[in-house]
Amino acid sequence: MKSERIPVKSFSADNGFIGKMQKLVREEVLPYQYNILNDAIPGIEKSHAIENIRLAAEKLRGKDVKPDEFYGMVFQDSDVAKWIEAAAYALAAGEDPELEKAVDETIQLYGASQHEDGYVDSYFTVKCPDKMWTNICDAHELYCAGHMMEAAVAYYEVTGKRELLDIMSKSADCIYEQFMKKNTRAYPGHPEVELALMRLWRATGNEKYKELAKHFVDVRGQAPNYFVEEKKNRGWNVWDGTEELNTDYTQSTLPVREQKDAVGHAVRAVYLYTGMADVAKETQDETLLAACRNLWESITKRRMYITGGIGSTFMGEAFTVDYDLPNDTVYAETCASIGLMFFAKKMLENEHRGEYADVMERAFYNTVLAGMQLDGKRFFYVNPLEVVPGISGKAVTHRAVLPTRPQWYACACCPPNVARMVSSFGSYAYSENEDTFFIDLYAGGTVKTEKGITLTCETDFPHGGTAKYTIKGEAETTVAIRIPAWSEKSLLTVNGEVVDLNAVTKDGYAYITRAWKDGDTLALTMDMTPHVVYASAKIAADSGKVCVQRGALVYCAEEVDNGKVLPLYVKAGAEPKALDFEPETLGGIVPVEIAGCAQQDIDTLYSTKVPKFVEKTIRLIPYYTWANRGENQMRVWLPVK
Amino acid sequence: MKSERIPVKSFSADNGFIGKMQKLVREEVLPYQYNILNDAIPGIEKSHAIENIRLAAEKLRGKDVKPDEFYGMVFQDSDVAKWIEAAAYALAAGEDPELEKAVDETIQLYGASQHEDGYVDSYFTVKCPDKMWTNICDAHELYCAGHMMEAAVAYYEVTGKRELLDIMSKSADCIYEQFMKKNTRAYPGHPEVELALMRLWRATGNEKYKELAKHFVDVRGQAPNYFVEEKKNRGWNVWDGTEELNTDYTQSTLPVREQKDAVGHAVRAVYLYTGMADVAKETQDETLLAACRNLWESITKRRMYITGGIGSTFMGEAFTVDYDLPNDTVYAETCASIGLMFFAKKMLENEHRGEYADVMERAFYNTVLAGMQLDGKRFFYVNPLEVVPGISGKAVTHRAVLPTRPQWYACACCPPNVARMVSSFGSYAYSENEDTFFIDLYAGGTVKTEKGITLTCETDFPHGGTAKYTIKGEAETTVAIRIPAWSEKSLLTVNGEVVDLNAVTKDGYAYITRAWKDGDTLALTMDMTPHVVYASAKIAADSGKVCVQRGALVYCAEEVDNGKVLPLYVKAGAEPKALDFEPETLGGIVPVEIAGCAQQDIDTLYSTKVPKFVEKTIRLIPYYTWANRGENQMRVWLPVK
Repeated sequence: MKSERIPVKSFSADNGFIGKMQKLVREEVLPYQYNILNDAIPGIEKSHAIENIRLAAEKLRGKDVKPDEFYGMVFQDSDVAKWIEAAAYALAAGEDPELEKAVDETIQLYGASQHEDGYVDSYFTVKCPDKMWTNICDAHELYCAGHMMEAAVAYYEVTGKRELLDIMSKSADCIYEQFMKKNTRAYPGHPEVELALMRLWRATGNEKYKELAKHFVDVRGQAPNYFVEEKKNRGWNVWDGTEELNTDYTQSTLPVREQKDAVGHAVRAVYLYTGMADVAKETQDETLLAACRNLWESITKRRMYITGGIGSTFMGEAFTVDYDLPNDTVYAETCASIGLMFFAKKMLENEHRGEYADVMERAFYNTVLAGMQLDGKRFFYVNPLEVVPGISGKAVTHRAVLPTRPQWYACACCPPNVARMVSSFGSYAYSENEDTFFIDLYAGGTVKTEKGITLTCETDFPHGGTAKYTIKGEAETTVAIRIPAWSEKSLLTVNGEVVDLNAVTKDGYAYITRAWKDGDTLALTMDMTPHVVYASAKIAADSGKVCVQRGALVYCAEEVDNGKVLPLYVKAGAEPKALDFEPETLGGIVPVEIAGCAQQDIDTLYSTKVPKFVEKTIRLIPYYTWANRGENQMRVWLPVK
Repeated sequence: MKSERIPVKSFSADNGFIGKMQKLVREEVLPYQYNILNDAIPGIEKSHAIENIRLAAEKLRGKDVKPDEFYGMVFQDSDVAKWIEAAAYALAAGEDPELEKAVDETIQLYGASQHEDGYVDSYFTVKCPDKMWTNICDAHELYCAGHMMEAAVAYYEVTGKRELLDIMSKSADCIYEQFMKKNTRAYPGHPEVELALMRLWRATGNEKYKELAKHFVDVRGQAPNYFVEEKKNRGWNVWDGTEELNTDYTQSTLPVREQKDAVGHAVRAVYLYTGMADVAKETQDETLLAACRNLWESITKRRMYITGGIGSTFMGEAFTVDYDLPNDTVYAETCASIGLMFFAKKMLENEHRGEYADVMERAFYNTVLAGMQLDGKRFFYVNPLEVVPGISGKAVTHRAVLPTRPQWYACACCPPNVARMVSSFGSYAYSENEDTFFIDLYAGGTVKTEKGITLTCETDFPHGGTAKYTIKGEAETTVAIRIPAWSEKSLLTVNGEVVDLNAVTKDGYAYITRAWKDGDTLALTMDMTPHVVYASAKIAADSGKVCVQRGALVYCAEEVDNGKVLPLYVKAGAEPKALDFEPETLGGIVPVEIAGCAQQDIDTLYSTKVPKFVEKTIRLIPYYTWANRGENQMRVWLPVK
């Protein structure tokens, strides 16, 4: 049963956790990131992203701009695009003339950096116009264009303003010419434009964009490998080009319909799979959808952390092999979990199965949120499940695994990605088709359906387990609400009357069909009992260890609460216990306690003496709140004693 | 109390485990490796090492040799050197005209490749004579010379033949000119020549060689860093030179006397420390010895595997930071444990403390022996403590961790290093000074002391715990025998009478002073009870896990004995039990059993269901025998349930 996500502006998060997060993004994150993009915050990693665009515009107007005036990554433009997209979503929550002005000025500048033929990319315009479209493997022109297309669609949908949409339509037309007529074997090195073209198609109705997205999906990985040939012929590299080209890195070893394992750069992978799932949906391509299901299984059944993190190594920011899930040298990039949410949502739009939403929720409430400090001013790129200061961030094998969040990154893909995900949460929380309105995630606020009713949700999620929806308006229709797999005992009521879940639940969703009336209520009570979680015996890193999950939240032990974490063990058979909600702790959390013990350390590396253990109650906090109280040891998986 | 190791030829291993290993090296390993060095075994990794030397010799005789006729590593010569050294030791065990002829021919060829001024190195002679001595950081000229000096000393000591000793004295004179007069700030990028020069000094009595060794130790790491300056100025690289030079890699960040942590490339580190310890000993340099003690502690108290493996990562084949000891992505290069034995023995020669010999024994009987297949025909470079086929050798992070031994390597440093270590075992097993004859390791065979007595040892070590020494000759002197730290209850008798160990033991050695007479016996019975071993709580990788050690041998569980190892747990409180010696198993071993259980796997990655366990007796084998029965799962540290 197919569906569409709702437009971002159909949902207004006026209460609860998501409302608070969106307010943080509006009031703190977006102004902060705008200042960074404009190099207005001294003493932190320089962005130069907007200045690059200005330089490109000035060069097109004839000013003498030196190539080395460009600063930053080949994909520096995309930081601006993601910021515009996030700002667009923020504007859906209410007017903000200052923000809108900042966006409009940025769009105007960007438009001025567009070439006559529609080409737009500050890196190539400033640095090397002669090299445009010659390095499709690494140079990210299509990636940057894709992100700006997403921004354009978002800004148009929220504000009705067409300027950026027109710029990016012209850009898409240019890309169409290049890749449908001239260089027809090429496809993006970093997938993104596929999913963006599908959004542009939806916003503009221009079938060429869907055709181009499908083309990119179809030609990917055809033999002989395009990237290998391109590299042989092009004679220049963006990155140090001495290493042999790894086609897995770009998911181009095989045509996509033959790919069975999620491989290579994790963000590229899930962005690609999202585009594939969208093309499959909109072209009724069952073979392509089957490939998406295989790749989904590869990720979620064999290559995903309990936190919804993906990518086991910093070497290529990549997936490795099945069941290789180290907790300390993990990558689990914030962007990769955001991309996993994209993929999950697009699979949901293909077929409404709770497992997609379960994973989407797992990724969001654990890895994605952990990507940002609680005050919105510092960000993780890498999200480890085990941190030991002195090793993490220090050992060459752990150098990407920082024990605290930096303010910004030279490669700053993650921070604005979190911003756009949080502020567009509504479109991940709800979907709709002709028959049914779907509640995929729980978020306080009001959502407008296409069916003549609105639902206002009050919820204490994710710290509490109740979500109550009050209906406004009247319609005979179906509302389907997800019953999360982690909730062992769920209670659903309609106007206070208990619904027999067995009778109405299919694939993780309870379907309630009725003539909804003004004032009707639909209330879900989920089982928030904290549980000990065991990993598959195939995951070597988790042998003999457990972790604790409560609702959607994975918990962890931090040194600041427990002393050094490394000697801590969970007592065999111990049951975790949720404490009362602590509004003042870490922005408001429900801590969990579990009986444990601490191993008294020996002063030799190895000993035959049985170590002494002292009883100790371990205090656990939600993983997304870790590293908000300074550098300290942290562990999600704890050994059992 | 200082001492000297005994000459290799003073010990003849005519029985027991070491005798069997030395016979294997003589009869299988040396002929096999000679054939490889001569490219006479088709279908395996090409060596070309002897052909390179032939090409260099021909070029010096005026033949037109093309630079690209050289094949292999910049240090390819060193494989030949180590093979000659091992062959020399093998000749100490008895005449072998064929082997001796092969050595003599190789030496003659090598001599013909020496330049007028003493310079000798096939890489530079064939490929780029204009670049001699311009890349001291990476080009291994001093490393190759050092290895050939060791070979020269060994061959001279065993056979009395001076030809190679003269060649290498001339080479050392050339090096002296270059580094004591011309380029006085330089020192070896890969330490080795320091320890070799000390050996050459001992063999020739030429004080210049000791002076040069001391010079290399003294100038190392002086500011400004020589290697950084050299790289800036030289304009060519042996390796891909785009990365910034890491001075830790070459132990050159600080002057050696200020170095506190063992860092960088592990083999370089321990070769350097060996040279330092030797210079400290022979120049009565207490500051240098103190630095050696610090570095020893850094390795053995914080950076060493239970197997005596060192080097936690393939990234730079290097040490990382304290307590970072992953079992699956470990490096633990065979050569590094051999180098650790060098360092341990040299520390023993400085001061007889049992801990040095304990570590030497741990490294030998676990990592060094694991480096070679039981038939002597395949070799490990990397010695992991946990192997899962499908991940090990496959995931990019585990690519160096092979699940089975290859026949040969492009970088073939380890195989001939094992050969020379095994065949020179006697000089590691015994030391001597004016007052005392030291028994550092247990090996069946006869050893001649400088005191007028010989000792004949009968022992079932390492599988059994008895070592009985029968004296021949007469002398009033002290024999000191090491009481290993792992032996909780040891029994020492002289002529059947029990010695009060408390009264005679100091720093791990029991000192027996008496007028030894023909037929006297000294017998040590060690405690071979297998024990469960616990790791420091600071080692994250071993949290909640134990391993089993029996005597000097660390044990491991293999899939071939137990089924898949990953679901295996040791039962809490279980005592390991040694089985009877099995002469037909893996060359003869004492297997150990321990009560355990196997976790029944779940079909999801993560689950809140308590997994089921089935009781299971786990069969363990000595670590050095692993991977002799095909590719399979292996684990040293097992979780406890």
